Amino acid sequence: MIIDDIEEDFGGIDTAVAAHVERALADYLAGRQAGMAAVAPYFGSAVESLSAFVLGGGKRIRPTFAWWAWRGAGGAGDGEQARAVLRAVSALELIQACALVHDDLMDASAVRRGKPTVHVEFAARHRERGWLGAPERFGAAAAILLGDLALAWADDMYVGAGLPADRRDAALPPWQAMRAEMLAGQYLDVLTQAKGDESAEAALSVARMKTAAYTVERPLHMGAALAGAPEQVVGALRAFGADIGLAFQLRDDLLGMYGDTDVTGKPAGDDLREGKRTLLMSVGTRRADAAGRDTDARVLRAALGDEDLDSATVERVRDLLVDLGAVAEVEHRMDELTDTAMTALASVDLAEPAGAVLADLAITATRRTS
Amino acid sequence: MIIDDIEEDFGGIDTAVAAHVERALADYLAGRQAGMAAVAPYFGSAVESLSAFVLGGGKRIRPTFAWWAWRGAGGAGDGEQARAVLRAVSALELIQACALVHDDLMDASAVRRGKPTVHVEFAARHRERGWLGAPERFGAAAAILLGDLALAWADDMYVGAGLPADRRDAALPPWQAMRAEMLAGQYLDVLTQAKGDESAEAALSVARMKTAAYTVERPLHMGAALAGAPEQVVGALRAFGADIGLAFQLRDDLLGMYGDTDVTGKPAGDDLREGKRTLLMSVGTRRADAAGRDTDARVLRAALGDEDLDSATVERVRDLLVDLGAVAEVEHRMDELTDTAMTALASVDLAEPAGAVLADLAITATRRTS
Repeated sequence: MIIDDIEEDFGGIDTAVAAHVERALADYLAGRQAGMAAVAPYFGSAVESLSAFVLGGGKRIRPTFAWWAWRGAGGAGDGEQARAVLRAVSALELIQACALVHDDLMDASAVRRGKPTVHVEFAARHRERGWLGAPERFGAAAAILLGDLALAWADDMYVGAGLPADRRDAALPPWQAMRAEMLAGQYLDVLTQAKGDESAEAALSVARMKTAAYTVERPLHMGAALAGAPEQVVGALRAFGADIGLAFQLRDDLLGMYGDTDVTGKPAGDDLREGKRTLLMSVGTRRADAAGRDTDARVLRAALGDEDLDSATVERVRDLLVDLGAVAEVEHRMDELTDTAMTALASVDLAEPAGAVLADLAITATRRTS
Repeated sequence: MIIDDIEEDFGGIDTAVAAHVERALADYLAGRQAGMAAVAPYFGSAVESLSAFVLGGGKRIRPTFAWWAWRGAGGAGDGEQARAVLRAVSALELIQACALVHDDLMDASAVRRGKPTVHVEFAARHRERGWLGAPERFGAAAAILLGDLALAWADDMYVGAGLPADRRDAALPPWQAMRAEMLAGQYLDVLTQAKGDESAEAALSVARMKTAAYTVERPLHMGAALAGAPEQVVGALRAFGADIGLAFQLRDDLLGMYGDTDVTGKPAGDDLREGKRTLLMSVGTRRADAAGRDTDARVLRAALGDEDLDSATVERVRDLLVDLGAVAEVEHRMDELTDTAMTALASVDLAEPAGAVLADLAITATRRTS
C-alpha cells in the first residue's frame, strides 16, 4: 500500500533525528523558495543563500532535544503526529538561523562554519558586480532582511506543521518564551561587553538566557508540551535543561579558546578578539587578581576585545588560563552542573529510549570537541 | 451588569479604529514588557524603547484597512469576536515596527517621526555612559534585536488574539504572505539602489511589493479572510488594495520631495539623499533625456544618492521635476489608479458603512499631506 510505503520510507526518526530535521527543513524551504521566486524572482537568489545557510551545517541540537522530550513524555516515534512534531521542532533551526545571521553581523564576524558569513557573502557579491554604494552596507541590509525572513518563516513552519490545534496551542508558551529569551540573551551579551562587566554573574546571566534557556530548557519544554506532559515531567526536563544548557555554554567557551579551528570552523581566539565576557575569562582575571599576579591580570584584560590580537598573545592567554586554574575551575563547574542535571532527569520516569538518549546527549554536549 | 459595562466602555471601534488599535497595542506591550522585566530586567528598558516607538505615532493604516475589510465582509463591529479581530489586525503594527526600525538602520536614517531613530537613540545612550566599543555598533545591535523582537511579538499577538481557530487559520495565508512580501520589497528596494536601476519598472516593482501588497492589499485580504468572505469579495478587495496601495506609494514619494517636514517628521530631500529610486525621479530623468535637457538630466542623476546634498540643490530638483512635467505625470497616474481601484470596490456589495469608509480611505490616502 502506498501509505505504508511512505511511512516506511519516512520511518526511523529516532535513529537519525538530525537527518530527518534536515529533510524537513529542506522540504519546507524548497516550497517557500518556489513560492517566493514566483512573486519576486530577484529575491529568489537571496533566499537561496538563506537556504544554503540553514542546510549547510549545524548540530540540530535544539530540535534534537525537543524531539527526545516529546518521545520521553510518551509521544509517538512515527506516524502522522510524529511527522508533524518533527516539522514543528525543526522550525527551531530557523529561529537559530536568524540568531546566527544577525549575531554575525552585530559581531562583524567574517566566518561561520568555515564559510563567509551572510553579510560578508553579500558584500562580496556587491563588490564583484561593481554596484553603487558601500558593499558593506549592502551586505548588512541583506543579512538583516534574510535573518528577518528566517524568523518569520520559523513561525510559519511551526503553525503550519500540521499539529492538532490543542497541541499547537499547548506548546505556544515555550515557543514564544524561547524567541524572546534568545533576543534578551543577545542583548545582555552586547550590553555586558559594552559595560565591560567582567563579573562571573554577568557571564553566567548571558549563558543562562542565551544558551541554557534558549538552546536546551525551552526546546525540552516545547517537546514535553507537545506531548501534553504533566507539570512534574515538564519541571524535571526544564531543570535538567537549565543545568545542561549552562554546562553546554561553558564547554562552548572552552572550545572558543582551545578548540581546533578545523573542527569548530571558527578561528581560535575569535571570542577573545570580540571581547566575549565568558565565565572562563572572569575566573581567570579574578584568580590573577587574588594571587597578586598583576602582569598576568593585565595581559588578560588587555587581550579581551583587542581586535588586532596576534596569535602569540592568544597562545599566552590560553596558557595563563590553564596555569591560573581557570580551566580546571570551569571544568569542575561543568561537572557539578552535569550532576544536578542528571539528578533532575532521574527524578521522573521517561519513556525509553528517550531517558537514556537525553542522558547521553547531556554528556555528549558537555564533552564535545566541536 | 458588569459585562455590559465593559462592552460599553470598549464599544465603538468603528468610530475610532486607530485609537482602539493603539489601546490594543498598549495593552499587549504592557503585558509582554512586564513578563520580560521579570525574567530579564536589563532588557526591560530596551523593550520600553520599542514600546515607545510603536505607540509614539503612525497612522495605523494597515490595521485600519484590515478592520474595514472585516466589517465590509460582514464581520461584527463589537462583541468578543470583534475585539479578537481588533487585536489580530493591530499585530500588523508590530510587523511595521520591525520594518521601520530595521529600515532606518539600513538607510542610516537619523530621524523618524521627529525623533531619533532607534539605532541613533541607543548609540547616544552608549556614548553618554562612556561604554566600551563603538557607540554606532551598539546602536545597530539594539536596533537589530528590537526589530526582531517586534517581528516575533507580531506573531505572538496574532496567534494569541483570541480568534476562533478556523478564522485564525483562514487568515494565515495573507498574514504569512504579507511578512515575506514586506521583506522581498525591502530587498528589492536595496537591490535597485545598488544596481542604480533608474527604470520606471524597477520603481514600480518596489512600490508594488513594499507598499501595495504589504500595506493595503494584504491587510484587506487578511480582514476579508478573518470574516470568511467569499472568493469574489476577497478578489475585489485585493484588486482595490493593489491599485490604492500603489497610488499611496506615489503620494508618499511626492511627500518625500514636497512634503512639509513639520508634518511628515522627515527632512525634505532625505529620499533623494538616500538614493531612493522613485517613479517620480524615473519619470523626471526620462523626460529630461527625451527633451534633450542634458544639464537637467545630469542634475537629477547627480542628486540621487548624494548624501551631502545641500538644500539649494534639493530645491532645484524640486523645481525641475515640476517643470519637466514629472509631478503632473505621477499625479495623473495616481488618478488612474484611484479610478480602477474604485471600480473594483464598486464591483462587490460590502456591508455599510465599510464600503463608504474604504472609498474614503482610498481618497484620503492618496490625497494626504503627511
